Amino acid sequence: MKLCTTIQEMRQERARLGAVGFVPTMGFLHEGHLSLVRRARAENEAVIVSLFVNPIQFGSADDLANYPRALERDVALLREEGVACVFAPEAAAFYPEGFATQVNPEGVALELEGPSRPGHFAGVATVLTKFFNIIQPQRAYFGQKDAQQCAVVRRFVKDLNIPVEIITLPTWREKDGVAGSSRNSRLTEAERLQAPVLYQALCRARDLVQAGERRRAVLETAMRDVLVQAGLTEIDYATVVDPETFQAKETFTEGALALLAVRLGAVRLIDNMPLLPVP
Amino acid sequence: MKLCTTIQEMRQERARLGAVGFVPTMGFLHEGHLSLVRRARAENEAVIVSLFVNPIQFGSADDLANYPRALERDVALLREEGVACVFAPEAAAFYPEGFATQVNPEGVALELEGPSRPGHFAGVATVLTKFFNIIQPQRAYFGQKDAQQCAVVRRFVKDLNIPVEIITLPTWREKDGVAGSSRNSRLTEAERLQAPVLYQALCRARDLVQAGERRRAVLETAMRDVLVQAGLTEIDYATVVDPETFQAKETFTEGALALLAVRLGAVRLIDNMPLLPVP
Repeated sequence: MKLCTTIQEMRQERARLGAVGFVPTMGFLHEGHLSLVRRARAENEAVIVSLFVNPIQFGSADDLANYPRALERDVALLREEGVACVFAPEAAAFYPEGFATQVNPEGVALELEGPSRPGHFAGVATVLTKFFNIIQPQRAYFGQKDAQQCAVVRRFVKDLNIPVEIITLPTWREKDGVAGSSRNSRLTEAERLQAPVLYQALCRARDLVQAGERRRAVLETAMRDVLVQAGLTEIDYATVVDPETFQAKETFTEGALALLAVRLGAVRLIDNMPLLPVP
Repeated sequence: MKLCTTIQEMRQERARLGAVGFVPTMGFLHEGHLSLVRRARAENEAVIVSLFVNPIQFGSADDLANYPRALERDVALLREEGVACVFAPEAAAFYPEGFATQVNPEGVALELEGPSRPGHFAGVATVLTKFFNIIQPQRAYFGQKDAQQCAVVRRFVKDLNIPVEIITLPTWREKDGVAGSSRNSRLTEAERLQAPVLYQALCRARDLVQAGERRRAVLETAMRDVLVQAGLTEIDYATVVDPETFQAKETFTEGALALLAVRLGAVRLIDNMPLLPVP
């Protein structure tokens, strides 16, 4: 396995590989990432994984500074998974002096996480456009845990005609239901014990829908009740939207996705669950 | 020569070609465009030319509606030039319903034409990113007449790591000095007789620099005098900038580019001339 730290090295290495599956990550890998890597290995001649904590997608310098990092451990994990190449560029070389371009997604990017994290999706779209141009993968793999990010990526890839197939895999969860996230490592022991409540709130909405409920207000209240009763009161949003537009509707006949963003102490966690399939 | 009107056709056709030189145009071709095509033919296995009046780079619906079009004549001209493929997509299919992504160049894009034409360079960067992804050319060719556009393109191509070489050719001029532009066709006979004054103003600045003048204010006043004395009073700008940053400096020791934007009746013309080379 080759570790590339410059764009030039990465381009040279990529030229030696056939059809590439690409798994973009910010490192501090968990089982969710590894499930993407395994799927990519099964579907492509070679797998490239990026490890890059992308500064331009963070709203606060604090969140960026606190994002967990473990490069050596990540590289060892990926070597075991049979990855062909790891790309871990330096931020200063990736965004050199004079850098002045943004890929700005609108539409779905303006909902939920959009106002909560100004500039976030533009940062994501910009870094991914750069990665896609450097790595030129046939397929790129994303986890459903970042559901809105997946929708944003599909949109700008289609809009800009980027020749890559976007593949989304179901959210990987711990045994207690907590969605895999590098941010989980920043939870205290007590907070980690509270974290499954997000999953439980989503399951409550799912159960109500399976029992025939279709009103957004009822589903939202039910999720909030679960959260608040467990002491999770810092709720950015707990809502149900159309999974393609990410806009709320009063009632759902098809296509419904429940989403949560909740603060536990210093950590903001997101999770989601499909309630009704898109037709 | 193949004429492709859909993205799918264009991708299929491109896959059959080797190294491609790409000449993006808005059609209504003149000798300036053809000089780019000839250079592209000399340097690549195949040449693809796009004919597309890009709606998202026009600030006013009027300017868009009035932009001259001559598809059949253009196709015939390009056939004679030995072009492999012409790409003339429909705007509605190129920007389908739900389209929601912009490539936003900042830096050099914020100067001169930036404030004069809000959204213009974002429209240019977005359409070119789409073309580059569909056509995947080795090289793309632009005329120095759109000097700021050339600088913007170089910037976003570098920033987004788009694997294409940007080549700029000198401005093609009529015998009387008028820079080749599709917009010239919209000038009245009387306006066409006035149009060489832009070139004369630029030559005045060049002559002054060759005589040792280095003060921006003196050069600007000299250009304005030439324009105004010939009755061209609707001057958007007449200035001298650094050709890399497009920012004005009080005096120039190296790297100076004179630029004009002037209205003749209903038509806004731009032109430029390098005065001092970049070191």
